[in-house]
Amino acid sequence: MVNASINHPGAMDIKGAAPSALPDLPSAKDKTLFTPGPLTTSLSVKQAMLRDAGSWHFEFNAVVASVRDRILRLAGVSREAGFEAIPLQGSGTFGVEAVFATSVPPSGKVLVLANGAYGERMVMMLQRARIEHAILRTATDILNDPAVLDRELAADKAITHVAAVHCETTTGILNPIVEIGKVVKRHKRTYVLDAMSSFGAIPIDFDAAGIDYLISSANKCLEGVPGFSFVIARRSMLLACEGYARSLSLDLLDQLKGFEKNGQFRYTPPTHAILAFQQALNEFDQEGGVSGRAARYQRNHSLLLEGMKQMGFRPYLPPEVQTYIITSFHYPDDPKFSFHDFYNKLSDRGFIIYPGKLTQANCFRIGTIGRIFEADIRALLAAIRETIDDLGVCIKNGRR
Amino acid sequence: MVNASINHPGAMDIKGAAPSALPDLPSAKDKTLFTPGPLTTSLSVKQAMLRDAGSWHFEFNAVVASVRDRILRLAGVSREAGFEAIPLQGSGTFGVEAVFATSVPPSGKVLVLANGAYGERMVMMLQRARIEHAILRTATDILNDPAVLDRELAADKAITHVAAVHCETTTGILNPIVEIGKVVKRHKRTYVLDAMSSFGAIPIDFDAAGIDYLISSANKCLEGVPGFSFVIARRSMLLACEGYARSLSLDLLDQLKGFEKNGQFRYTPPTHAILAFQQALNEFDQEGGVSGRAARYQRNHSLLLEGMKQMGFRPYLPPEVQTYIITSFHYPDDPKFSFHDFYNKLSDRGFIIYPGKLTQANCFRIGTIGRIFEADIRALLAAIRETIDDLGVCIKNGRR
Repeated sequence: MVNASINHPGAMDIKGAAPSALPDLPSAKDKTLFTPGPLTTSLSVKQAMLRDAGSWHFEFNAVVASVRDRILRLAGVSREAGFEAIPLQGSGTFGVEAVFATSVPPSGKVLVLANGAYGERMVMMLQRARIEHAILRTATDILNDPAVLDRELAADKAITHVAAVHCETTTGILNPIVEIGKVVKRHKRTYVLDAMSSFGAIPIDFDAAGIDYLISSANKCLEGVPGFSFVIARRSMLLACEGYARSLSLDLLDQLKGFEKNGQFRYTPPTHAILAFQQALNEFDQEGGVSGRAARYQRNHSLLLEGMKQMGFRPYLPPEVQTYIITSFHYPDDPKFSFHDFYNKLSDRGFIIYPGKLTQANCFRIGTIGRIFEADIRALLAAIRETIDDLGVCIKNGRR
Repeated sequence: MVNASINHPGAMDIKGAAPSALPDLPSAKDKTLFTPGPLTTSLSVKQAMLRDAGSWHFEFNAVVASVRDRILRLAGVSREAGFEAIPLQGSGTFGVEAVFATSVPPSGKVLVLANGAYGERMVMMLQRARIEHAILRTATDILNDPAVLDRELAADKAITHVAAVHCETTTGILNPIVEIGKVVKRHKRTYVLDAMSSFGAIPIDFDAAGIDYLISSANKCLEGVPGFSFVIARRSMLLACEGYARSLSLDLLDQLKGFEKNGQFRYTPPTHAILAFQQALNEFDQEGGVSGRAARYQRNHSLLLEGMKQMGFRPYLPPEVQTYIITSFHYPDDPKFSFHDFYNKLSDRGFIIYPGKLTQANCFRIGTIGRIFEADIRALLAAIRETIDDLGVCIKNGRR
């Protein structure tokens, strides 16, 4: 196994591609996104944005209230059980930072479990916010270790919060959030979970895991468009954080109070993204909720993995830690392989894949979430086969 | 003149209105928004969102690069002259806070010129971020005072930054940003301007005012949809702020470095809102840029003011400080007037106005920006006349 470190997202430069605006002669349809989000969404989700809603108006506020309720319901928690759903403007990163900026007391300390770029990003947030922190790193292909966490929490009483990443999109690894949570709760610390790319498609048991703050985003497995994240927070815990906030925009407690005062976002909400999200939730229900969506993504992933292996591609992760959200594949061993050419030729064929994020292993990634189906995976596999042939790359020798 | 203090945005509760979701039987068109944003936008701007763009993909990055260039061009500045346009996820408030969070040194102090809620909001940001600050308040109907600022800056050498609001949307007052800027520059301090609701429709002379950081938003006079703000920053000044940032999400210098590294937003951008903005800029150019847009908004405002005065409504501000973005009107003196009923009956007729934001003066506001024309203003005036008749309110005695 490779103990790879993390590369900057998108550091791989796609040179030589015409850096013009969207093509002058528009195509009939968009390229399909096999990425971790923003994703390919349904036309009906996008069409829900063909409206202008007033952010102060009661009709829009009713949508906000309904969306907040539905987030709780699909998470399997409720207001009665002490939870609140708090949408926040900006990307998922803003939501994660808001939890730290609001909930960690001045004397608090956060322990971050990191095995990828999103764990490392939490560390960067804590550094910027001058919040005391420590890091438990495992290699990018190794799960967070509850036993090490247990020893660390026993040894360091200053730690108030433990933060983990559910599906680490860097590789596609799925961390053991219930086992981690049991340790965190046994030591009576606060548990923060970044479930950005898993929420809605991988079942999460709040009770079993003892989650206090969960963060996800509109444009991941719920298949909305980007514009806001949301936090599911234990209300009593959040209310106890009065005066801690280090930022106004990222003050999650104040955001909650705003909703409770007049049903509104404190500051201009992304009205169109919220309307799209409402429609995305309708389509989520229509698909059978978490289990329905999980089933489709699982089929997408299985088909992809099987097809890629048949061509000789090797997945980065061992199957026992790999989940069905996104999959990293090693570059073929053939020196003729160029990711630049591979990416561009797939793009020309209408398929957008994703670069790797590891510095020590040459990988690319393929997402299997969003409004994509088996037919899209089959089409992608055919395009990959053609592209590899075009490039004259031999990948048979790369087979495990 | 009334020395009114500021009310919480939207604190006026519209009770009794059916808090259901958007109506089950959809209307043929949206209600027209006479608000300070989100605004009524063109259908073609919204249609630009019927696409899914990959946030890592070179085609989308080319759009981002083009949008950044066009913001500079329409501001009348350039990269050659030392400026950068930096879009940031979230609402306008996030952009203003990002400037403070990134550019104020640990030992810095910000002087805020406040005559409305947006000046007060800056104070709240500085409090949360534990940044030293002072406030020069004038009444909500009185302009910022450059002479008082001059004395304050001479007296307090600890002040590093001066922050002002161009058009204070609380009332619609237009502050003297060039006169303020000349004082700030004479004292060699950094000048931060919140031009949220003016940029693109009120000419701003960067050179004359000596602006170092200007913040505006996609969903104001440029008539895009909400989802991001942008900062026009003096590059050399921003580059000198290394290490100051108190937040990762709001780190404007890191955001700039991200664009310069690989053309990308560091974290998931609101792709649809960016595509809509590109189209909004096309339509802005088509209208003749700042002067064309200003002319339409001026006509909207003049027509509104004339019509409202004819009915007996009194504007809150004296004409010499009132600009054409948004206008506050006193409630009629008749005790039969209820803003709740007035608002709801106008909403039933398809017109959304805006509540007041002053605690000591009972006002409502009407915005004259967004994709609205003289015909929309005439229709609004007719609806107001009918509504006042419906309510049996006498406003003649309210006339100045």
